[in-house]
Amino acid sequence: MSRTPEFFNVQPVRAALEALFAQWTPQPRREMRDPRAALGCVLATELRSPIDLPEFARSTVDGYAVRAADTFGASQSLPAYLACVGSVAMGERAAVTVGTAQAAEIHTGGMLPPGADAVIMIERTQTIGEDELEVLHPVAPGENVIQIGEDVARGATILPAGHRLRPQDIGGLLAVGLTAIAVAAPPRIGILSCGDELVAPEETTAPGQIRDINAHTLAALVTQAGGEAVLLGIARDTFDDYLARARAAFAAVDLLVMTAGSSVSTRDWTRAVIDALGAPGVLQHGLAVKPGKPTLIGLAAGKPVIGLPGNPVSALLVARQIVTPLIQRLLGAAPCPRMSIQATLAASIPSATGREDSVPVCLSERDGVLMAEPIFGKSNLIFTLMRADGLVRVPLNSNGLPAGTLVEVNPFDA
Amino acid sequence: MSRTPEFFNVQPVRAALEALFAQWTPQPRREMRDPRAALGCVLATELRSPIDLPEFARSTVDGYAVRAADTFGASQSLPAYLACVGSVAMGERAAVTVGTAQAAEIHTGGMLPPGADAVIMIERTQTIGEDELEVLHPVAPGENVIQIGEDVARGATILPAGHRLRPQDIGGLLAVGLTAIAVAAPPRIGILSCGDELVAPEETTAPGQIRDINAHTLAALVTQAGGEAVLLGIARDTFDDYLARARAAFAAVDLLVMTAGSSVSTRDWTRAVIDALGAPGVLQHGLAVKPGKPTLIGLAAGKPVIGLPGNPVSALLVARQIVTPLIQRLLGAAPCPRMSIQATLAASIPSATGREDSVPVCLSERDGVLMAEPIFGKSNLIFTLMRADGLVRVPLNSNGLPAGTLVEVNPFDA
Repeated sequence: MSRTPEFFNVQPVRAALEALFAQWTPQPRREMRDPRAALGCVLATELRSPIDLPEFARSTVDGYAVRAADTFGASQSLPAYLACVGSVAMGERAAVTVGTAQAAEIHTGGMLPPGADAVIMIERTQTIGEDELEVLHPVAPGENVIQIGEDVARGATILPAGHRLRPQDIGGLLAVGLTAIAVAAPPRIGILSCGDELVAPEETTAPGQIRDINAHTLAALVTQAGGEAVLLGIARDTFDDYLARARAAFAAVDLLVMTAGSSVSTRDWTRAVIDALGAPGVLQHGLAVKPGKPTLIGLAAGKPVIGLPGNPVSALLVARQIVTPLIQRLLGAAPCPRMSIQATLAASIPSATGREDSVPVCLSERDGVLMAEPIFGKSNLIFTLMRADGLVRVPLNSNGLPAGTLVEVNPFDA
Repeated sequence: MSRTPEFFNVQPVRAALEALFAQWTPQPRREMRDPRAALGCVLATELRSPIDLPEFARSTVDGYAVRAADTFGASQSLPAYLACVGSVAMGERAAVTVGTAQAAEIHTGGMLPPGADAVIMIERTQTIGEDELEVLHPVAPGENVIQIGEDVARGATILPAGHRLRPQDIGGLLAVGLTAIAVAAPPRIGILSCGDELVAPEETTAPGQIRDINAHTLAALVTQAGGEAVLLGIARDTFDDYLARARAAFAAVDLLVMTAGSSVSTRDWTRAVIDALGAPGVLQHGLAVKPGKPTLIGLAAGKPVIGLPGNPVSALLVARQIVTPLIQRLLGAAPCPRMSIQATLAASIPSATGREDSVPVCLSERDGVLMAEPIFGKSNLIFTLMRADGLVRVPLNSNGLPAGTLVEVNPFDA
C-alpha cells in the first residue's frame, strides 16, 4: 500500500477545547477607546464610577418643588396653598430656595432647589394668579426626585471586566464622564488556505480550479466574534510552501487557522506544519462531530493553531465551535447566554451515538407553529448553509431526533 | 392655569407604525460592494448564479476515479482488480481517461476524469505494486462525486432581495464569482438632542448640568440596526434653535430622531418642530407602552421624524421598538426570526392592561433552571439597563405576569 489511512483519535469538542485551555494561557492585549467607538468591545478591566450619578437631586417630572410636609392632607376638596417663589432654570444651579408653604416651578431633569424635598406633578396643581398654587394631592418626601448617586454611587462597580459593551453601557459610561476605557484589542486571527486547486475569488477559474471561499467565510466569522482577520493567501500543496507561509505570518497573529490539508492523505500537510511551528504541536487530531471530523487542534510556541477541513461547510461549522470560543478567550470575554429559537422538527434527523451532529435547518411557520426543516444533502455544498436559518445539534449520546421534537435552533447571525 | 396638560391619544406600537407605513414610501439607496466587505449588509436585488457550481464534477474523497460498473459485486473476499492508469493533478483539467477496468488516483476536490463516473475511497482499496488496485467494496454511479451544478445551477436564484449577508452567503457569492453586488446603502439617521441642561460627554458638568447620553446610546442602536448615525449636537430649549438645527440637517438624513421635548410642557417643542418641518407633520403623540408613553411619530416631506422621551431608558427602549423597524424598512430588509431566551420569571411583574410594558431582567441559573429576575425601580435610571441582560414584555391585554411564568427574554445585543 502506498498510503496508510490513519485513524483519528476523535474527542468531543468540549474535551478537545479543555485540553487546549489546560495548556494555553492567552495574553489579551488592550487598547484605550472612547466608549462612543467601543460598541461590542470587551472591557479589559472592571470599571468604577468616578462620580455620583446624578450629581445633584433631579426632578423626574414637570411640576413644583415643594416641602412634602406642606402637602400632607391636600386633596381636591381641601387643597394646600403654596406661594410660588420662582422657577428653576434648566442646566443651572437652583437659584431659588423653597421655604415652608413655598413652591418653585421645576422641569423634568431640573435641579431640586435647597429647602425642597419632593416635586409635585403639574397635573396635580392649579395656579391662582401669578404666584399662588393649589396643591390637590399630597406628595411623599423624595417623590418624583432622583437623589444624588441613586443611579450609581461614586466608587461603585459599573461593569465587570470581560463585559461586552451594549448601547446602554456606552450611555452609562459617558454619563459618569468615562471617555477613555481599556478594552481588549481585537485578536489577530491568521487565515491560511491551502490547495493547488484554489484561486482568489476575483480570478477566472480554469478547469479543475475553484475559488477559495473558506478564507472569506472564516474572516467574516472572525469579525463577528470580535477578532481581526489577517488573510494570509493560498499555500500550494507542498510542505515547504505551506510551512513557509504559516511561519512568515506566525509572529504577527494570536491564532492561526489553516483550512484544507487536515486529513490523512499525502497532500494533508497541516499536521506536519503545526508540529513544525513549535512545541507541543498537535494536541488533537479528530473531533467527534459531523461534519468536521478531520480537524486539528494544536499549540505552537504558546499560540493555538487550528487545522480545519477544506470542505467549506465543515470548515465554517467547526470554526463556530472552535475558533469562536478561542477568540472569546483571547478577548477575555465573559460567556454570553446562548440564544436560540425554539421550533418543532419537521422531519426526523438520523444520527449515530458518539458524535455531535450539526444539521442545517430552515425555519418556517405552519399553522402558527414555527417548524425547523432539516436540510440534508452532501455536507460539502455551501449552498446548503445559504438556504439554512440555523443549526440543530444532535447531542453526542443520541442516535437521532424524531420529527415533532421541540428543538433549539442556533441561528446564523448576519 | 398657566399650562394645560394635554392628554395623549395613545396607540399601541404596532398600530402607530402601521399608520406611518401606510403614508410613507421609503426610498432605499443602494451601493455596490465586494461581498468580502458586506457582512451584515442587506441585498438590494435578488441574486442569481452566473455559473454552475461546481463547474466540473469533483471528488469528495481521496481515492480512485473508476467506472462504477467495474466494482459491482466487489468484496473483501472477491475484490475487483483495476489497472491504475495515472493520477489527477489538483487544480488542473484531468489529463487521464478512465476506461473499462481502469482507475485513476484522485484527491478530494479533484476533477473527475473522462470515463469515470464514481470515486472509491482509498480506505476501500489496496494497491498491488505500482499500477494495480484491489477494490474491496462496490461503488454506485455518482458516489463520492459532486456533479456539475449540484451546489447551485447556473441561473438559479442564490439569495432574495432583502437578505442580510452572513458568513456563508459571502462564501457562496464568491464561489460563483460574484465580487460586486448591490446592497442597501446604510440609511442616515439624524440624532438631535435637546435640553439646556445637556453638555457633551467630554465636558465637565456644572451644577444643574448632565452629560448628553441619549445621542450615543441611540447612535449605537442605529449602528447595530445597519444605519449610519449622524450626530446633530444639542439644541437649546427654544423653538427657534431646535427647529433651526432640525431643519439644517433634515435634507441630509433619511430619518430624524429627536430626544427630549416630546411631552406636553412649555419646553416641549418637539411636536411643533415636527409640524414645522413639513406636512403632514405629527401622526401620533403617545404610545401605549411603559416606559416611553410621550413619544411622537411624524412624517415631514416624505421622511419619518421621531420624538423620543428625554429619559434615557425610555428613549432607548422605545427606539428599539420604533427606530429599529424604520431602519429595517429603509434598508429593505426582510424580517428576521425573533431571537429570545426562555427563562422562568423569578418575581411577579405587575402591569396595567392597555399598555405594553418592557421590563428589564437579569438572567441567572438556579438549580439548572434559567431564571429571569425583574429589575424594578425608577424608569429613568440608565444603570437599570446596564444591570439587565434583556427585556420581558408584558402584553397589551395583560395585567401582569406571575412569578414562575415561562417567559421569552429579548436579549440586549452587544
